[in-house]
Amino acid sequence: MRLSPYRRYLPILDWGSRYTTEMATNDAVAAVIVTIMLIPQSLAYALLAGLPAEMGLYASILPLVAYAIFGTSRALAVGPVAVVSLMTAAAIGNLGLTDPAQIAAAAITLAFLSGLILLAMGVFRLGFLANFLSHPVIAGFITASGILIATSQLKHILGVEAHGHTLIELGASLWAHLSDTNSTTFVIGTAATGFLFWVRKGLKPLLIDLGLASRLADILAKAGPVAAVAVTTLAAYAAGLDTRGVALVGDVPHGLPPLIAPSFDLDLWSSLLGSALLISIIGFVESVSVAQTLAAKKRQRIVPDQELIGLGASNVAAAVSGGYPVTGGFARSVVNFDAGAETPAAGAFTAIGIALAALLLTPLLYFLPKATLAATIIVAVLSLVDFSILKRTWTYSKADFAAVAATILGTLGLGVEIGVSTGVAVSILLYLYKTSRPHIAEVGVIPGTEHFRNILRHEVQTHPALVTLRVDESLYFANARYLEDYITDRVVGCPSVKHVVLQCTAVNEIDMSALESLEAINHRLDGMGVKLHLSEVKGPVMDRLQCTQFLDEMSGQVFLSQYEAMRALGPADDTPLRAAG
Amino acid sequence: MRLSPYRRYLPILDWGSRYTTEMATNDAVAAVIVTIMLIPQSLAYALLAGLPAEMGLYASILPLVAYAIFGTSRALAVGPVAVVSLMTAAAIGNLGLTDPAQIAAAAITLAFLSGLILLAMGVFRLGFLANFLSHPVIAGFITASGILIATSQLKHILGVEAHGHTLIELGASLWAHLSDTNSTTFVIGTAATGFLFWVRKGLKPLLIDLGLASRLADILAKAGPVAAVAVTTLAAYAAGLDTRGVALVGDVPHGLPPLIAPSFDLDLWSSLLGSALLISIIGFVESVSVAQTLAAKKRQRIVPDQELIGLGASNVAAAVSGGYPVTGGFARSVVNFDAGAETPAAGAFTAIGIALAALLLTPLLYFLPKATLAATIIVAVLSLVDFSILKRTWTYSKADFAAVAATILGTLGLGVEIGVSTGVAVSILLYLYKTSRPHIAEVGVIPGTEHFRNILRHEVQTHPALVTLRVDESLYFANARYLEDYITDRVVGCPSVKHVVLQCTAVNEIDMSALESLEAINHRLDGMGVKLHLSEVKGPVMDRLQCTQFLDEMSGQVFLSQYEAMRALGPADDTPLRAAG
Repeated sequence: MRLSPYRRYLPILDWGSRYTTEMATNDAVAAVIVTIMLIPQSLAYALLAGLPAEMGLYASILPLVAYAIFGTSRALAVGPVAVVSLMTAAAIGNLGLTDPAQIAAAAITLAFLSGLILLAMGVFRLGFLANFLSHPVIAGFITASGILIATSQLKHILGVEAHGHTLIELGASLWAHLSDTNSTTFVIGTAATGFLFWVRKGLKPLLIDLGLASRLADILAKAGPVAAVAVTTLAAYAAGLDTRGVALVGDVPHGLPPLIAPSFDLDLWSSLLGSALLISIIGFVESVSVAQTLAAKKRQRIVPDQELIGLGASNVAAAVSGGYPVTGGFARSVVNFDAGAETPAAGAFTAIGIALAALLLTPLLYFLPKATLAATIIVAVLSLVDFSILKRTWTYSKADFAAVAATILGTLGLGVEIGVSTGVAVSILLYLYKTSRPHIAEVGVIPGTEHFRNILRHEVQTHPALVTLRVDESLYFANARYLEDYITDRVVGCPSVKHVVLQCTAVNEIDMSALESLEAINHRLDGMGVKLHLSEVKGPVMDRLQCTQFLDEMSGQVFLSQYEAMRALGPADDTPLRAAG
Repeated sequence: MRLSPYRRYLPILDWGSRYTTEMATNDAVAAVIVTIMLIPQSLAYALLAGLPAEMGLYASILPLVAYAIFGTSRALAVGPVAVVSLMTAAAIGNLGLTDPAQIAAAAITLAFLSGLILLAMGVFRLGFLANFLSHPVIAGFITASGILIATSQLKHILGVEAHGHTLIELGASLWAHLSDTNSTTFVIGTAATGFLFWVRKGLKPLLIDLGLASRLADILAKAGPVAAVAVTTLAAYAAGLDTRGVALVGDVPHGLPPLIAPSFDLDLWSSLLGSALLISIIGFVESVSVAQTLAAKKRQRIVPDQELIGLGASNVAAAVSGGYPVTGGFARSVVNFDAGAETPAAGAFTAIGIALAALLLTPLLYFLPKATLAATIIVAVLSLVDFSILKRTWTYSKADFAAVAATILGTLGLGVEIGVSTGVAVSILLYLYKTSRPHIAEVGVIPGTEHFRNILRHEVQTHPALVTLRVDESLYFANARYLEDYITDRVVGCPSVKHVVLQCTAVNEIDMSALESLEAINHRLDGMGVKLHLSEVKGPVMDRLQCTQFLDEMSGQVFLSQYEAMRALGPADDTPLRAAG
């Protein structure tokens, strides 16, 4: 389906033209629920990113409007999310800044760069780059990030100073400051954490027992963090905690986000570029997988390359309105979907909700204890921690296990950026290693059939003058020399061998290196008086080979089927086939 | 064949125990011829590497003995070679040293590191790493290196100063110094170059016309460089050129190489480590491919992992005897083979020849013009320059072409190290890109047969409720999401579809990411009321899937053959198949 450029780049033209009042009502209801979730989350994640609370609110207004215009998912709820906030903290931490204004400017620039990268990836259709993050690497990264995030929030629960971007740094820093623990803060933090865990596990069953409908109980349970925020803020106000050493959110500028031009400081750009790329790709992967899962439930489709545009526009919008990097969040998107959101307009309505909060509620946040926000983060991220991926990959594939283990250890021990890069590098290297030593089966015919099978696994017949090898991999530079060695080794010791047949059923490509290796093999075998043949070559592979001299120079022939090859080269009537076992 | 550790690591025990007087005679004859070639080459390549001439001789004594003990090739002639000498010059150039003693020490350390890397790769069987240098990348690299080397030698032909490690730097530097050209040097240089080109092309036919046997004519032609060295040295002596501004080799210390302990300066190690790794891998690839070609001619085999040990030992030997990095050279090895070398002992005999030269001939080298050595280098390396690889890859495979072009441009424009690294990176990235977007064919049955073919290429029958997709690639993280998108897109718009069958004939592996994608696909299709089936799954892939929950959770079945799948899921008798074309 070819869309006009307008429709391709502006999905809003598509759904907007069929928008009804009923849809608007459904979207608005979903928006109210998401807004209630998003207010405490946006404040908390800004805190996690090391930024002032209002930047969380700012990142939840214009970016949502931008996504509503450019995004293709009907249910994705864009805004600040935990992992990207942690990565933002790490990226800014690398710069070693101390001035809060500079830190805020760096976060804004990070959002801008990330937006430009996502837009460029969308325009040039580079979304496939995200595919090099394997599922196990993502799972390991999310788990390790969850642990890092929860650990980083312990300082707010204890009311102490602590810094660091790895588990060891954070642990050592917390330990060193443990004696500074503020007991009031600690009481608020643990009470909020306990309450939120109970809300997550126990509130919904209780509400249902009390006679509420399941869906309503679910929605009320999502309001837990808002309740915690309201109660602890009131308590802090009542007890005058601002004078008792309890860290509070304090003055939050009220009003709509300021519109600002992004910085074009090239030094800052170059030091943030790597981080922005990682944040873009991680954010995109997270977002697109939840969008795809939700879209499939309604047999809708999302367009990954357009999602890049949608998320890119959101991040640029975040940058010009004082926010920080955003993406589609898993939990809020599921809530949005379950609450009945039908179009991206739900996101725009959420933006209105957050804008109202920024206009009206910010004075009330003065007494909000940071410990409460830390508690909402801890409870949210601990649900992401799941070590079962280690066990599953261990059973299924050691290469995947190695990639997960490298990701988790790298992230916890060396930080998020090195962690995820290590995971990607390990998984690519192990994949290349595997393809560089392909499975090569020597095959023989199953008596009475035309089927050829591995001589090591099946009772098959072979002939001493004929060696048939089935290579279970495309032939390319990384395994071309392996094939040369394998065939040379196989033939050198066996003077009886007169024919080598390569059965190419699983060979999807032969690149230039492999072609030259085949030429070398042909040449060497020829020198030993052995002929090289091919069988069952796929159409596209054959098309290419026919552009070259190789088929003319090859000492043997190309057979359509392996059976034909055996019939032509195999036993004279008086030479019995040798049964191998 | 399992060898005892002694025999594995000391191939000399194997051939040495069967060594005869006749073999010794043949080896000695070959050694004399190789020695005659090696004397001028070793001096010239040391010059190319930016080192004193004697280091070339030193690199041609102990390293050859070490290879004779540890190497597996019967004909490989180890010693200084052009490309590795150029890479040595580049590596040392990076350090910005000016003191000749420090430069020599750096070259020695480079040989030592390279030796250790090769030994480690041999012990840990990491020879496969060399496979990631594709043939086209190597061809492009050799061609570009040949151009760089020839250009770098022009300064000796002109008798001017010029520096640089890229074509642009060299060209600009030569241009700037062109007016300093020493006319005597220029005459010697061009005469020697012209003579050597004539020897290469015209001497052998002439000698044969004069009645010499072809083999003798061949050997005499190889002595051309020695003749050029002798004649120009005599001429320089007779004309007293040392007083006329002609650069001569000058004092060469005579005697055997000094035995020295290698440096353990960790700063130097860390700045040379990357270069040493590249030199090791390039040297190994060059060496092993010539060794393999020559071995195959006699139906012998070489052991790549043991070759790493042999070359590693040679480089360590070079380091402890004042040499610089060495490897197996193409031209000398072919001469050695043609001259009848039967065992690695020929190399040890060559070492004796060079040792005698170091003891006796060095005083005679005082008047040897550097222009003569430059001429031997230029004539030798221009035979390596071959741009046909560009044309061949352009016709055969655009990905290979991109890798060659990147290698050549990178090497000429940015230097050898960046050039070869770029080539490797481009070829790996393009391979990954290709596998990330696998060929997926929708197939239908050819009427009257059990064969399934691409509906776009063949007249086949399909059924509106049944979509069969054949994925021509292993399923792994880089293409898992592509498959998800592909299947979702295929099904979302077609409400008639009830069954999707994946035909897995070319799927050699399903990694954890692909497994999770299959689970997601199954889940999504299930949500749309569509069943997912597999057919023709390979044994090892099936074994793994059976360790998981996937087969239980899959909405459909696993069919042994695609035909069986179609029979089970396909048309009821009254539903006609739709013919696609």
